[in-house]
Amino acid sequence: MDQAIGSTKPDSPDMAAAPAVERGRFIKNAWYVGLWASELPAGTLVPQTILSEPVVFFRKQDGTPAAILDRCAHRFVPLSMGTLVPGDRVQCPYHGLEFGADGRCMNNPHPPGTIPTAAHLPSFHVVEKYSMIWIWMGDKPADPSLIPDYSCLETSPAIHITDPGYLSIKANYELIANNLLDLSHVVYVHGGILGSPGLEQSDIKLETHGDVVTVSRFVKDVETPGMFQMMAPEGYERGDSFTSISWYAPSNLLLKTGSCKTGQPQESGTGYWGIHLLTPETERTTHYRYSAVRWNVMTQGDEKNEQIRQKIGELRTFAFADQDAPIIEAQQRRIVASTTKLEPALLAIDAGPVRCRRILDRLLLEDR
Amino acid sequence: MDQAIGSTKPDSPDMAAAPAVERGRFIKNAWYVGLWASELPAGTLVPQTILSEPVVFFRKQDGTPAAILDRCAHRFVPLSMGTLVPGDRVQCPYHGLEFGADGRCMNNPHPPGTIPTAAHLPSFHVVEKYSMIWIWMGDKPADPSLIPDYSCLETSPAIHITDPGYLSIKANYELIANNLLDLSHVVYVHGGILGSPGLEQSDIKLETHGDVVTVSRFVKDVETPGMFQMMAPEGYERGDSFTSISWYAPSNLLLKTGSCKTGQPQESGTGYWGIHLLTPETERTTHYRYSAVRWNVMTQGDEKNEQIRQKIGELRTFAFADQDAPIIEAQQRRIVASTTKLEPALLAIDAGPVRCRRILDRLLLEDR
Amino acid sequence: MDQAIGSTKPDSPDMAAAPAVERGRFIKNAWYVGLWASELPAGTLVPQTILSEPVVFFRKQDGTPAAILDRCAHRFVPLSMGTLVPGDRVQCPYHGLEFGADGRCMNNPHPPGTIPTAAHLPSFHVVEKYSMIWIWMGDKPADPSLIPDYSCLETSPAIHITDPGYLSIKANYELIANNLLDLSHVVYVHGGILGSPGLEQSDIKLETHGDVVTVSRFVKDVETPGMFQMMAPEGYERGDSFTSISWYAPSNLLLKTGSCKTGQPQESGTGYWGIHLLTPETERTTHYRYSAVRWNVMTQGDEKNEQIRQKIGELRTFAFADQDAPIIEAQQRRIVASTTKLEPALLAIDAGPVRCRRILDRLLLEDR
Repeated sequence: MDQAIGSTKPDSPDMAAAPAVERGRFIKNAWYVGLWASELPAGTLVPQTILSEPVVFFRKQDGTPAAILDRCAHRFVPLSMGTLVPGDRVQCPYHGLEFGADGRCMNNPHPPGTIPTAAHLPSFHVVEKYSMIWIWMGDKPADPSLIPDYSCLETSPAIHITDPGYLSIKANYELIANNLLDLSHVVYVHGGILGSPGLEQSDIKLETHGDVVTVSRFVKDVETPGMFQMMAPEGYERGDSFTSISWYAPSNLLLKTGSCKTGQPQESGTGYWGIHLLTPETERTTHYRYSAVRWNVMTQGDEKNEQIRQKIGELRTFAFADQDAPIIEAQQRRIVASTTKLEPALLAIDAGPVRCRRILDRLLLEDR
Repeated sequence: MDQAIGSTKPDSPDMAAAPAVERGRFIKNAWYVGLWASELPAGTLVPQTILSEPVVFFRKQDGTPAAILDRCAHRFVPLSMGTLVPGDRVQCPYHGLEFGADGRCMNNPHPPGTIPTAAHLPSFHVVEKYSMIWIWMGDKPADPSLIPDYSCLETSPAIHITDPGYLSIKANYELIANNLLDLSHVVYVHGGILGSPGLEQSDIKLETHGDVVTVSRFVKDVETPGMFQMMAPEGYERGDSFTSISWYAPSNLLLKTGSCKTGQPQESGTGYWGIHLLTPETERTTHYRYSAVRWNVMTQGDEKNEQIRQKIGELRTFAFADQDAPIIEAQQRRIVASTTKLEPALLAIDAGPVRCRRILDRLLLEDR
Repeated sequence: MDQAIGSTKPDSPDMAAAPAVERGRFIKNAWYVGLWASELPAGTLVPQTILSEPVVFFRKQDGTPAAILDRCAHRFVPLSMGTLVPGDRVQCPYHGLEFGADGRCMNNPHPPGTIPTAAHLPSFHVVEKYSMIWIWMGDKPADPSLIPDYSCLETSPAIHITDPGYLSIKANYELIANNLLDLSHVVYVHGGILGSPGLEQSDIKLETHGDVVTVSRFVKDVETPGMFQMMAPEGYERGDSFTSISWYAPSNLLLKTGSCKTGQPQESGTGYWGIHLLTPETERTTHYRYSAVRWNVMTQGDEKNEQIRQKIGELRTFAFADQDAPIIEAQQRRIVASTTKLEPALLAIDAGPVRCRRILDRLLLEDR
């Protein structure tokens, strides 16, 4: 399925489904990023609220990650306030009950040897992959092959990967996903920092493959954006610019952007992958992790590459934290403050978000 | 209609209607003060929540004010975070949609030329008058002749007008209006600063003319309050003191206070007009704007007049911010914290507030 | 009734009643501590929210305490913002209405001599006893003989009593009472500060007498805890250690702890009484007052006794404020955040709390 967005009329019945913010529910049977792998050193207990559930992450002695409910079965104290004890167990700080990586209570000292059946906790499937700890919050089988491909984070040398980024955004994850999938806001929100000259007049291509929605833009023979000039040797002052972003239901995205010489294949140019990982914390707050990985690096020496790595990281953090986040959080506040149900006016650029919304609606039904 | 308040017995059936704080609704078809005119410089976008609705104010190129909903029709972002662009349009910061002073969408760049009908926003009637930007939030015809007469703010020289005051009060507007209309609290809350000796024992006169309620007090041959001695030449150490305050439904008030020589006409004395402008922000918060204008100024020279101007301004700000506001906000908190409906004991001094309440009840019915 | 806790099986039907946190109601017909007597100097008006009701405490000219609703009958302003005036009356800061210790309106200046019947306020029974101001919030007869015996606070010399402690805890009072009644958490939460070596393996004895539940522990011939070594002369390095705590429904507790020579009567040893006074402020917050009083003091001279007094006070404040409170408040947050009703796993150590819960359930029924 592949269709130019120009053919979708605004306000057409096909686009009638408005993005909802306050669903009051989440898709539980899906892979979410719980933490960057680097956020979970051995021996630590790391709490994280995910889909409104308290979760505590830790590493077993063999280094593999584990996650159980962060709420003791006895008195409901956060286990993350306790201690990781030998035998891959989390010990409650209040009365010393110990829970294994599968959530089973392994020790109750009151008196020793008595373990009530009710003292077992939910545990969650976790997988360490692509420098991240992935978590599956639902009851259906957790298939690691469903994790989107972020292999660029594993296969690229560290000098071409920006530091793992984290922002806590006070908005529903759908508002952030819509923002990322929407290449047209770049001109208004990130003018002069991200995007390419002329990009706003380019055609938008929309593709859907299963539960993946991809939006692409391409501009021919324009001044090469500063960020790509920095990444390329001389002779790239002008060329073709391109960006595509894929949304993997429900909330992870992968962007590819770059420039090449006019009329040449895109792969002959250079640019970066943008990694965008959204994990609902609550209905109104989202964990947002991000990074960037250069592709087709045109060797310039480690000193220059480190400069570029720093620069991409800084620009992207500025764009998300100082430009996107204030707008998205204000949007969330306006929606929450409204006493009536808001019906958005739909534009041609909303075709991507609308398609995502339909997929989410279906997944929510399947999730029950 | 004109009646001395002494004739109203406390607890009489006539006063049974208790002031409510939590109506959960507002009178929309009425004039409210949106801003002081000086709060809206040319070229700015000024947000203000009024009757729980987000409003953005701006000036057209001809200088006249305009106000539209401060929430883009597309993604609900506050337009006040955007830019005022040529053609008297507000441009959304997110995707660049442009809205005119009448709320119509004038430009959608995605793609240019397509403007969905649903992309139009509510606009509000606004009028600049008496140094204020007035706004009408309802759907009924907005008749500027209904704006109460604050012409003293326009006709007096600036040296006789205190600086425009603003306080954000964490209380329902009715509680503040009741406070202002109630001349008897002055002895207890503002003792030594406002009011006249003996005022608490004077008769209260209550008049109603249409939707205007006026409460007046008069004391004969007492020591002239310090503030009026300051405003008068020698020979005014003793005389008659008087105060009357008119409430213009739903929430603007005008006070006249002063002193004159014993037995002389009040107009032969001197004093000031007190301007009190209440605009509900939410059910529990109110924009309170205030100023004072001297009447029958007895010329003393600019230096002395400026001292008087400063002094009146300081005393009144102190009285509102440091004396009234803490009490009214504590009152609001007690009402909100109560789990049962509170029925106030009614006193003779509540005749004014009770009459206002009846008018508000009727206006609420008419407002639907 | 007297039974070793070992005989109560976890998960037995007898323990099925789970502690509730969010009852949405309180036991009103009971004695609560309103203030330490020292918190109420003559001439002051002291506000305190108790069982979600605003109360103002003051002393009459004869020194006896009084308490009335802290909300004027007229405009609902907190009377505690007003003034105590001659005649044991509280004057409202807003309009000067005066209320007596029995809640009756004694003066309304608007106009003088008119006092509407509705202007009377609820008053509360208060008793000063054992260095505390006790308050009875309900309508049933308030019998001072029902106040638990804290006479140690009155009969002991001041040098053996720690300073009156106060903490505002962001948790329901039942969670705190459960914590105090549960001697088994000491090993995990207060390890090295409170408790005795081997205490966790000792038998727990549970006794119920009317509405008093007592939990006791005893360990034979162990190293004497540092705090008791400090309180005893030489020769007490080893001995028997014991702790018992009684809960007086609904929310006051008295602990007795100490050490004696091995095999000797407990009364031949030394230790302290722990006073724990819980007063619900709201469903989710509690006033917690505490102190400690030494018993069977083995004279060491005033300097040493003052050191001991300070040390017990510091250790206990640290244990409550820095060790217990963070855990109990996190427990409360987890309970509040849960969207489903939480059913705790019950352990043998919960026999005491479960018995208290049954008594509270009965008292709630009787309270209506």
